[in-house]
Amino acid sequence: MSQPDTPSNLETLSAALEVGELQQLRFMLNKGLRPAEVAHLLEKTPPRERQILWNLLHKNLEGEVLQYLGDEAQADILSRMEASEVLAITETLETDDMVDILQQLPDRVMKELLQIMDQENRERVEQVLSYPEDTAGGLMNTDTVTIRPDITVETVLRYLRRHKEIPEMTDTLFVVSRKGAYIGVLPLTRLLTTDPDVLVREVMNTGVEAIPADMPDESVARQFEQLDLISAPVIDAQGKLLGRITIDDVVDVIREDADHSLMSMAGLDEDEDTFAPIMKTTRRRAVWLGINLITAFIASAVIGLFEDTIDKVVALAVLMPIVASMGGIAGSQTLTLMIRGQALGHVERSNIGWLFNRELIVGALNGLLWALVVAVVAVLWFQDLTVGIVIALAIVINLLAGAMAGTLLPMILKSAGIDPALAGSVLLTTITDVVGFFAFLGLATLFFA
Amino acid sequence: MSQPDTPSNLETLSAALEVGELQQLRFMLNKGLRPAEVAHLLEKTPPRERQILWNLLHKNLEGEVLQYLGDEAQADILSRMEASEVLAITETLETDDMVDILQQLPDRVMKELLQIMDQENRERVEQVLSYPEDTAGGLMNTDTVTIRPDITVETVLRYLRRHKEIPEMTDTLFVVSRKGAYIGVLPLTRLLTTDPDVLVREVMNTGVEAIPADMPDESVARQFEQLDLISAPVIDAQGKLLGRITIDDVVDVIREDADHSLMSMAGLDEDEDTFAPIMKTTRRRAVWLGINLITAFIASAVIGLFEDTIDKVVALAVLMPIVASMGGIAGSQTLTLMIRGQALGHVERSNIGWLFNRELIVGALNGLLWALVVAVVAVLWFQDLTVGIVIALAIVINLLAGAMAGTLLPMILKSAGIDPALAGSVLLTTITDVVGFFAFLGLATLFFA
Repeated sequence: MSQPDTPSNLETLSAALEVGELQQLRFMLNKGLRPAEVAHLLEKTPPRERQILWNLLHKNLEGEVLQYLGDEAQADILSRMEASEVLAITETLETDDMVDILQQLPDRVMKELLQIMDQENRERVEQVLSYPEDTAGGLMNTDTVTIRPDITVETVLRYLRRHKEIPEMTDTLFVVSRKGAYIGVLPLTRLLTTDPDVLVREVMNTGVEAIPADMPDESVARQFEQLDLISAPVIDAQGKLLGRITIDDVVDVIREDADHSLMSMAGLDEDEDTFAPIMKTTRRRAVWLGINLITAFIASAVIGLFEDTIDKVVALAVLMPIVASMGGIAGSQTLTLMIRGQALGHVERSNIGWLFNRELIVGALNGLLWALVVAVVAVLWFQDLTVGIVIALAIVINLLAGAMAGTLLPMILKSAGIDPALAGSVLLTTITDVVGFFAFLGLATLFFA
Repeated sequence: MSQPDTPSNLETLSAALEVGELQQLRFMLNKGLRPAEVAHLLEKTPPRERQILWNLLHKNLEGEVLQYLGDEAQADILSRMEASEVLAITETLETDDMVDILQQLPDRVMKELLQIMDQENRERVEQVLSYPEDTAGGLMNTDTVTIRPDITVETVLRYLRRHKEIPEMTDTLFVVSRKGAYIGVLPLTRLLTTDPDVLVREVMNTGVEAIPADMPDESVARQFEQLDLISAPVIDAQGKLLGRITIDDVVDVIREDADHSLMSMAGLDEDEDTFAPIMKTTRRRAVWLGINLITAFIASAVIGLFEDTIDKVVALAVLMPIVASMGGIAGSQTLTLMIRGQALGHVERSNIGWLFNRELIVGALNGLLWALVVAVVAVLWFQDLTVGIVIALAIVINLLAGAMAGTLLPMILKSAGIDPALAGSVLLTTITDVVGFFAFLGLATLFFA
C-alpha cells in the first residue's frame, strides 16, 4: 500500500539493501511487518534480493511467511531446502496450510519428509494429501470443535471456557453423533443468544448441508459465495465429519480461478512469479511463441495460395490484415464472454443455443456496419470498387466465423477436457486468420480473375 | 451445479417453461431454491425467460434475489420498476446491500425513492451513499454490535442473551468509547473462553487497525486477505466507529477486480450480463471493433508505404503477418503479466527497472531463437537468403518492441489515470503491428533496393 508521499516498504528495503543496512532490514522483516506483508514484499522483489531477504528472516517466521507466498515462489524457496528444514518451519502451521506447502516439494523430498514426521502429524497430512489439491478434501482443515446434540447450551459454554483457545475462523460448532456422523451446526451467535438450559438438539441448525470431500473447489467456492458462509463442514461418503473449510482458503480459490482465465489466455500460469528469473521466463515464453508461430505459418500458407492474385493487385496485401484483425477481435470478445460465463457457471448445454444465435446476429450486424465503413475507405483509398466489395464480404464472413468459433470452441474444448482459457485464443486466432485471409484473397481471386 | 445424470435447475426450468407448467416453476422459485440460487438461475437465462421467471417470483423474495444479481442484470430489472416498488422490495435488506441496488437506479428514480423513504432509513442510506461505491465507506454496513471497555465479560454475555439475534457474519464485537470512538475488538471466540469476571478492557484486542472510510476497496480486500479477517471496523477521520465491512462483500470485490482485467482486455465490462439482449450487445461491441479498426488501418497505412517493394517481392506479403503476430503475442504476455502484477500490487516504481530489463533480455533471447527458426523456413520456402535475413532481423526488433511496450504501457497508462487492462491491448497491438510491418518491409526495401 504505497502512498505517494511516504516511501513504500519496497523503497525502504531497496535503500537499506543498497547501503547494506542489514540491521534495519532484519528488524523490518522480523518485527515491523506481519508475515503476510513480508510475503507480499518478497513477491515483489527480484530473485537476488529475495534470497538476501529470506536469509535475514528468523527461522520461526519462515513457515508463516511461506504459506502466504504464491505456489511458484514457494517452490523456488523450497528447492534450496532439506526435508528436515522444511519440516522444522512448517510443523506449527495448520494442516491444510502445511499440505499446501508440501505439495510444492519434489516427490523425493516429500517422501523423505513424511518419513521423519511424527506419526500423528503424518496421519493428518496423509489424510489431506489423499484428496486432490483442487477438491474440498484438499482445502479442509481438521481443527473442528465438535459437540453432541444431547447436551445443554450451559455444558457447551463450560466446555468452551475450559479451552484456552478456539481455532481461528471458528464461527460455528459442529454437532456430531456418537459415531462422528455430521448432524448440524451451532453458530456461536446462536449459542450466545440461547437460554443455557436448552439442549443443543433444540437450537442447532440442521439446514446447513455438509460438503462432500470430493466436491471440486470451484463448487465449494460457489457454495460459500451463494450462502455467505464463513466455514463449512466436510464429510466423507458415509457422512462422517472429516474437517472444515474456512473462507480464507476459499478466497484463495476464487482469486486463483479468476486469475487463471486472464493468465491462461496469454499462455501464462496463474501461479506465475512476477519476478521469475530470466532463463525460466524465457523457456516458458518460448513454448507459447512456438505454438503461436504454427498459427502464423498456417496463415502465411493460406496467403501463399494466392500469391498470383496479390502480385496482380497489391492493394490486397495492404488491406488483408484488416480482415483478419476484425475477425480476431470480434471472436475474442465472444470467447472471453464464454470463458467467463463457464467460470461463473452461467453456460450450459440448454442455454448455449440462445448464446450462439445472439453471437451470430451480433456478429452479422457489426459485420455489416464495419464492412460498409471499411469498404468506403478502401474504395476511396485505392479508387477500386471491386476491392471495396471484396473486403466488405470478407469482413462479414470473418465476423460470423469469429462468433461461431468464439461460442463453440469453449464448449468443445471443455467437453474434451482441454482448458478453454489456454487453448481457446490460439485456436480462435488460427480460425479467424485462415477464414479471413482465405475469404478475402479467395473472393479477390474470383472477382479479379 | 449440473450433474451429468440429473437435470440441472436450468433444464428443469426450460422444460417447465416449454409446457407452461407455471405451478411447478413457482414452487421451485419460491420454495425449492435459495435466493442466491434463484439469482444464479436468472443470470443464466435469456431475457424473455428471465422476465417470465421474475414475474413468478414472490414479492417478498425479490429484494433478496436482486442483491445476488450482477450490476447489469440488476439495472435491467430495476429499469421496469417504480420508486415505490423498489423501496418495498429492498426495505428489509441490510443497508449496504440496499445501497448496492439503489446505485443501479437512474438518478431521477433514486431521488424519488429517497424522498418517500422514512427518515431513519434515509439517513442510513445517505451515509453509505456519501462514500464512493469503491471505498470502504461504500462497502460498509451499520449493523455493528458495540460494547464499552469498562464492563465485565459476564455483562456482555447477559447483554447478548437479551438480544434475540446477533447480525449475520458477526465474529467479533467492537469496543467503543462513550463518544463512539473505536478502541478495539472482542472476538466471540475469546469472549467464550474468558472468565466472566474479567473486564472487556483486559481481554479486548487493540491490535486490529480500523479501516478508514475512504480506503479504496482493493486495499480493503488486500487487508482482509493478508490478515484473514471475517469482519473489520470502519472509522471516520476522527476515529469514530461508522460500521463494519464483512468478508462476503469483500469476496465480491475480489471476484470483480479479478474479472475486471480479463474482461477489459477484450473491451468488455466485468459486470457484463452473459445474456444481455442483442441490440445492447451489438452497440457495445461495435465501439470496441471501431477502436480496433483504427489500429488495423494504421497497420495498413504502414504496409501501404511499401507497396512498391511488395510488388517486387510478393513473398513479403506472405510472410509479413508472422512478424506482426510474433511481436503481438510476446508483447501481450508481458502486458498480461504486468497488469496482473499491478492488480496484485507487485509492481511499483522501484522494481519496474528490473522487470523492464528482464523482459528485454527474454524478448531478445526468444527473438533470436524464433528468428532463426522462421528464417530457415522462409529461406527453404522462397529459396531466397535475403528474405530470411530480413525476417530474422524484423522478428528480433519486434519482440524487443513488444517487451518494451508491454512493460511500459501499463505504467504510463496507470499514472495517466487510464485503465491499462482496457487500453493496453489495443495500444500494444498498434505498436507491434506498426513496428513489425515497418521493420520487415523497411528492411526489405533496403535489401532489395
